[in-house]
Amino acid sequence: MTGFPISGFVSFVSSGPGDPELLTVKAARLLAKADVVLFDDLSAGPILLHCRPDADLVAVGKRSGRPSPKQDHVSRLLVDHALTGARVVRLKSGDSGIFGRLEEEITALCAAGVAFEIVPGVPSACAAAAAAGIPLTRRLAARRVQFVTGADVTGGLPEGLNWAALADPSATTVVFMGKRTFAMLATELMNHGLPAETPTLMAEAVSHPEQRLTRATIGSLGAVIADAVSSAPALILYGPLMED
Amino acid sequence: MTGFPISGFVSFVSSGPGDPELLTVKAARLLAKADVVLFDDLSAGPILLHCRPDADLVAVGKRSGRPSPKQDHVSRLLVDHALTGARVVRLKSGDSGIFGRLEEEITALCAAGVAFEIVPGVPSACAAAAAAGIPLTRRLAARRVQFVTGADVTGGLPEGLNWAALADPSATTVVFMGKRTFAMLATELMNHGLPAETPTLMAEAVSHPEQRLTRATIGSLGAVIADAVSSAPALILYGPLMED
Repeated sequence: MTGFPISGFVSFVSSGPGDPELLTVKAARLLAKADVVLFDDLSAGPILLHCRPDADLVAVGKRSGRPSPKQDHVSRLLVDHALTGARVVRLKSGDSGIFGRLEEEITALCAAGVAFEIVPGVPSACAAAAAAGIPLTRRLAARRVQFVTGADVTGGLPEGLNWAALADPSATTVVFMGKRTFAMLATELMNHGLPAETPTLMAEAVSHPEQRLTRATIGSLGAVIADAVSSAPALILYGPLMED
Repeated sequence: MTGFPISGFVSFVSSGPGDPELLTVKAARLLAKADVVLFDDLSAGPILLHCRPDADLVAVGKRSGRPSPKQDHVSRLLVDHALTGARVVRLKSGDSGIFGRLEEEITALCAAGVAFEIVPGVPSACAAAAAAGIPLTRRLAARRVQFVTGADVTGGLPEGLNWAALADPSATTVVFMGKRTFAMLATELMNHGLPAETPTLMAEAVSHPEQRLTRATIGSLGAVIADAVSSAPALILYGPLMED
């Protein structure tokens, strides 16, 4: 951004999966000195207790199934706050670089000549595996780990998925936002050769007090989801998950 | 582990990439009360300042290029310490569930009837992208992110890599321990259709004071590595990395 008059500064802070103890020391420090904190619903709750009592806390949250401010409105709000010279924290759940739509806000900041930093955090995928007591990789059995979204902006299964990558029995896959489309995804995975008995784990509300882990298989999880009533955000892990 | 007489407890604690500020609040708390801490070289340094002055700090570290204790020796040491009833922390760099060989130590603990927990952390891959100011995913361009190792136990390129997954231009790939084998990997990726001009980033000593980021392409990074002398641990990212 050389050549631009730099004005304002934004810290993109990853909040981790929700448990305030899974915040990094750096995130806690930046929250404690922020003038303004723009936060998503999923990064809210006890984490905001780290903020100054006089900090301006602005909810801009997206939560699946509920109407939320448009992304370009969030970007404009972020730029406007930064240009006042305030210390701005943009709080995002999990690791902000993974399915956090960071790029749209970064583009807006760059266009406005606002400098920024990204503070990485604990991805909810890592917290889900840890909660289940399993590693995401295993030396011989799970030599690749991949994260994908199970839904595009319309809520349907994204187009152009790489089935050779996703139906690979020697990878651990974590599907974000994939509860509603899972039955469709599972059918495609089995059509592309992934065994129906592949171990599968649904992790809802990871690291929150209401966390729930459901063990199933690629072939059986769809029916479990159809029977459930929970609207909690969920991650779905499948692959050579460790037997316990 | 029902039916086993539980004796001892081990916390697998992820240290993050190295910057003590990227430790989680929970990791700092567990280190502060541990009686024994078994740590790898990569998770050492200022992070150990969180430990009690009278804690027993045991280096069991693996570091590429140096001889290190055998994995089964580490597992036995871990079990032995846990069975004394001590509060044991097994500290691993990055997120312990990603290429941390956690499964071998978990198996040993289960066999000995020792209970454990896994505390997730900031993966070095997330810290590398954050340091470069880029997200690992982008809504339309990078809809899948994957982590792989560039070397097996012999130091060579692992066998059985999924080239359809790895040469996918719409995924961001992070290669762990891949500096020595990168030229070979890059040739295979290009043979499988990945364009030579695919943006590539080498991140050495991520989050440490000596951190170094090198921007190149799939076609050019091999020569950069061959000319360099650094033995610092490195991550290599490639794919539709954000332009800046």
